[in-house]
Amino acid sequence: MSSEVIVKIGMLGMGTVGGGAAAIIERSGELLAGKTGIKLALERVLVRDPARSRAVELPSQTYTTAPDAVINDPSIDIVVELMGGIEPARTLISAALQANKAVVTANKDLLARHGRELQQLAHRCGQNIYYEASVGGGIPLIRPLKHCLVANRIERMIGIINGTTNYILTRMALERMDFQEALDKARELGFAEADPSSDLEGRDAAYKLTILAGIAFNCSLGPDDFSVQGISGVTGADIHYASELGYTIKLLAVAEQKPAGLALGVHPALVPLTHPLATVHDEFNAIFINGDLIGEAMFYGRGAGALPTASAVVADIIDAARSLRNGASERPPSDTPSKIKLLPPSALSSRFYVRLLARDRPGVFGALASAFGGEGVSLDMIIQKRRTNGTAEIVLVTHDVNEERFNRSLERVARLPAIGPERGVFRVLG
Amino acid sequence: MSSEVIVKIGMLGMGTVGGGAAAIIERSGELLAGKTGIKLALERVLVRDPARSRAVELPSQTYTTAPDAVINDPSIDIVVELMGGIEPARTLISAALQANKAVVTANKDLLARHGRELQQLAHRCGQNIYYEASVGGGIPLIRPLKHCLVANRIERMIGIINGTTNYILTRMALERMDFQEALDKARELGFAEADPSSDLEGRDAAYKLTILAGIAFNCSLGPDDFSVQGISGVTGADIHYASELGYTIKLLAVAEQKPAGLALGVHPALVPLTHPLATVHDEFNAIFINGDLIGEAMFYGRGAGALPTASAVVADIIDAARSLRNGASERPPSDTPSKIKLLPPSALSSRFYVRLLARDRPGVFGALASAFGGEGVSLDMIIQKRRTNGTAEIVLVTHDVNEERFNRSLERVARLPAIGPERGVFRVLG
Repeated sequence: MSSEVIVKIGMLGMGTVGGGAAAIIERSGELLAGKTGIKLALERVLVRDPARSRAVELPSQTYTTAPDAVINDPSIDIVVELMGGIEPARTLISAALQANKAVVTANKDLLARHGRELQQLAHRCGQNIYYEASVGGGIPLIRPLKHCLVANRIERMIGIINGTTNYILTRMALERMDFQEALDKARELGFAEADPSSDLEGRDAAYKLTILAGIAFNCSLGPDDFSVQGISGVTGADIHYASELGYTIKLLAVAEQKPAGLALGVHPALVPLTHPLATVHDEFNAIFINGDLIGEAMFYGRGAGALPTASAVVADIIDAARSLRNGASERPPSDTPSKIKLLPPSALSSRFYVRLLARDRPGVFGALASAFGGEGVSLDMIIQKRRTNGTAEIVLVTHDVNEERFNRSLERVARLPAIGPERGVFRVLG
Repeated sequence: MSSEVIVKIGMLGMGTVGGGAAAIIERSGELLAGKTGIKLALERVLVRDPARSRAVELPSQTYTTAPDAVINDPSIDIVVELMGGIEPARTLISAALQANKAVVTANKDLLARHGRELQQLAHRCGQNIYYEASVGGGIPLIRPLKHCLVANRIERMIGIINGTTNYILTRMALERMDFQEALDKARELGFAEADPSSDLEGRDAAYKLTILAGIAFNCSLGPDDFSVQGISGVTGADIHYASELGYTIKLLAVAEQKPAGLALGVHPALVPLTHPLATVHDEFNAIFINGDLIGEAMFYGRGAGALPTASAVVADIIDAARSLRNGASERPPSDTPSKIKLLPPSALSSRFYVRLLARDRPGVFGALASAFGGEGVSLDMIIQKRRTNGTAEIVLVTHDVNEERFNRSLERVARLPAIGPERGVFRVLG
C-alpha cells in the first residue's frame, strides 16, 4: 500500500475546466502524489482540433479526435467527461462504464436529465460516477452530503446555486443598477454567457437542485418536476422595498421535506438580512442545510470558474483512484430511490411579498385589505408611498398562507378597478 | 459487495456525545444500512457505572467497566473514544491500534498534544484514526480539507472555532451586554462550562487550530507553538467603536502560509461587517479558507452540542467501516510532515485597532500622532470622543504595519504623560 500507484486518465473535451484540470494534474502531480500516494497520468484527451495551441502543453500523441481511442483504451482507468451537453456525452459515458472505467463528470444537464439511469448503469458495471464538479464549482457539496452528513435526515436545503443571477441581484441591491446594467456588467466580467437565458430563467439552478435533492432525499426526479421561476420579474423597486423591510432578494433553490411529501422549487425570494444566505454576494454560491442532527450548516464558495471547478474534478479523480487502488467500489448496496411524493406548489405555504400600483384615491386601500382578508390572508407589513403620476405604490407582506388561498386573493385583487396590472410577487424566506 | 456488512463497535465513554452516537446507531441503523450497506452493531461500551440509567437502552451485558473488554475483544472492529482528556484516552487508543482496530475519536486535547504520535502509530499498525468530530462539531471540515480540497495549496485559514466566546461576543455586540452578563447567559444556555477558562483564554481554539493547520499545511505542531490571546480584554467600548468603524470583534484562529513560513495565532480581531465571518453569530462556528484553486470557501454550522458532534462521530464510523469492508486502509503512503517554519508573531504585519484614554488637554493628539509616526506607523481611521471626567477616549486604526514596529510605537505612546494605562489593542482582519 505504501508504494506509489499510477492511475491513467482519459479526458473527453478540454475547454476551460478541462484545461484547468490538465494543468493541475501536470503541475501539482508531486503535491497530489505526496498527499495521496497516487500518481495521475493524463494519457489521452479527446479534442476537436489537436493542432490548436493550449495553455497546458501535453505530448501531441495525447490528443485524439476519436472517442474510441479514449473509451476503449484498456490502459485507461478513469474517464473524465468535460464536454457538456446531453449528447454525445451520455453515449460516451455509458460506453466508458461498460468498458469498466470509473467516470468523473461535471455535466449538470446530463446528470439532471439522466443521472439515475447512468448511476444504475454504473452499478450494473460495478463502477462509480463522480460528479462533485457538477454543482457548486469548487464548493464541497456532494461529498459532504453523501459522507459527512450520512447519519442525518435532511429536512431542508436552500441554495444560491447560480452565480450569474446572484451577481446581477447583488449589483442591483448594492449599487442600485437596473437589471440590464447589471447583466451587462456580468457579461463584461465573464459571469454571464452570451446567451444567459438558462441562468436568468432558473433552469441552471433547477438542474443543480435536481442533482442535490436526488442525493439529499435519495429520490429520483427531473428538472421539470417542480416549478421554476427566474429573476426577470425582479425590479429595482422590489429590491429597494425588500431592503426597507429588512430583506434582500435572492434566487433560491429550495427542497423541503414536509410530512406530506417533498416540496421543491426555484424562485426569487426575500431573504432576511440576518440570514447567512443574505451575505452571499456577487458570483458566490452557498447551500444552507437543515439536518435533524447537525441543525443548520452552510457551505459557501465560488460556484463556477475554471480553477474552482477543476479543483472539484481533480478531487473526484483522486477519489476514483483511491477506490481503484483499494480494489473496491464505494457504491451503496442498492441505488433504488426512495418512493417520495413531490408536492405541487399549491400545497405549500409561505409568506408572500406583493408590490402593486393603485390609483391614489380614497377607499383603495380598504378594498385591497378586503380582497386579501376575504380569502383569510392576513397582512404582516405594509408600505404605501405616493408616486408622482397620481398612483400610489403599495407593498405588502402577508403572514404564512397556503399558496392556493393566496392566489385566490390575488385574483380578487386583480378585479379591483383601482389596482393596475403591474405587480411584483415573491415568496419570503421564513 | 451487495450484501449487508456488519461492523462491530466498541465505545469508550458514554457521556452526552457518546449517548448521542449510541442513539443514532440504535435508532437510525436502518437508514444508515440503506444508504451505505453497512450495519453497525454497538457491542461494548466502557462506562464508570453500568447501573446508571441512560437515554439509550442497551442490553446490560453491553456495558463494562474494564477497558480490556473493549480493546481486546477480537470481534470488535472499531473503537470509538469519547472519554476526553489525555489519559487514559491516549493509552487506550494506542492499545486499540495495536490490537488492529480502527479508531474514531472526538478528543481535541489529545489530538492537539499527541496527534502526530498517534497517527504514526496507526500508520505502523496499518490502521486509521478518524477525528472529524474533534473540530467544529457537526460541520464537515476535516474530510473536506483532506479530500475535497486535496488539489489545493491552502493559503490561509481563518476560523471562528469556539462557540462559547462567539456567543459572548455576539451578545455583547447585538444586545450591548457586558462581558459578565454575556458569560452568565452563556452558562444559563449551556454554551459555557462551569470553568470556562479554556474557552475564554483561547486554549480550546488553539487546540482546534493545531489540528486543522496540521492537516491543511501537512505540518507537525503543538498548541504552544503560537501566540494565543483570549477575549477577556475585549470591552463593550471596543465592540461599540468597532461597530462605528464598520467592524465586529470575533475570536479568530488564523493560519497563513507566507513566503517565509507559516504564521499562526489565536486572537480577538476586528472583522469587516461585509466579511462572511461577520455574520457567524451566537454559538455558531465557521472556517473561512483560501485555496489556490477554489479561491474562497466557508464552512458554517454548529461547532458543538451532543447531536451535531455525534453526527460527525457516526460519519467517521461509517467511513472506517467502509475502509474495513474494502479491505484497505485509506492512509497516505507517508505521514511524514513537511518541514514548515513557524513565524514568530513579531514577523507578521497587520492593521491594528487601538483604544486609549487621554487627558483632555491641548497637544495630546499631536503627541500621540508623533509617537506612531516616529516609528513609521501611519493611521487610517481616528475617532476622538470626550468623556465626562476630563479624559478623552481616542480610537485609532493603523495601516498595515509590522508587529514589532507597531509594538515599539505603543511603547512610545506609553511614555506620554497624558495617556492613561487603560487600552484596547486588537488586530484588524484585512
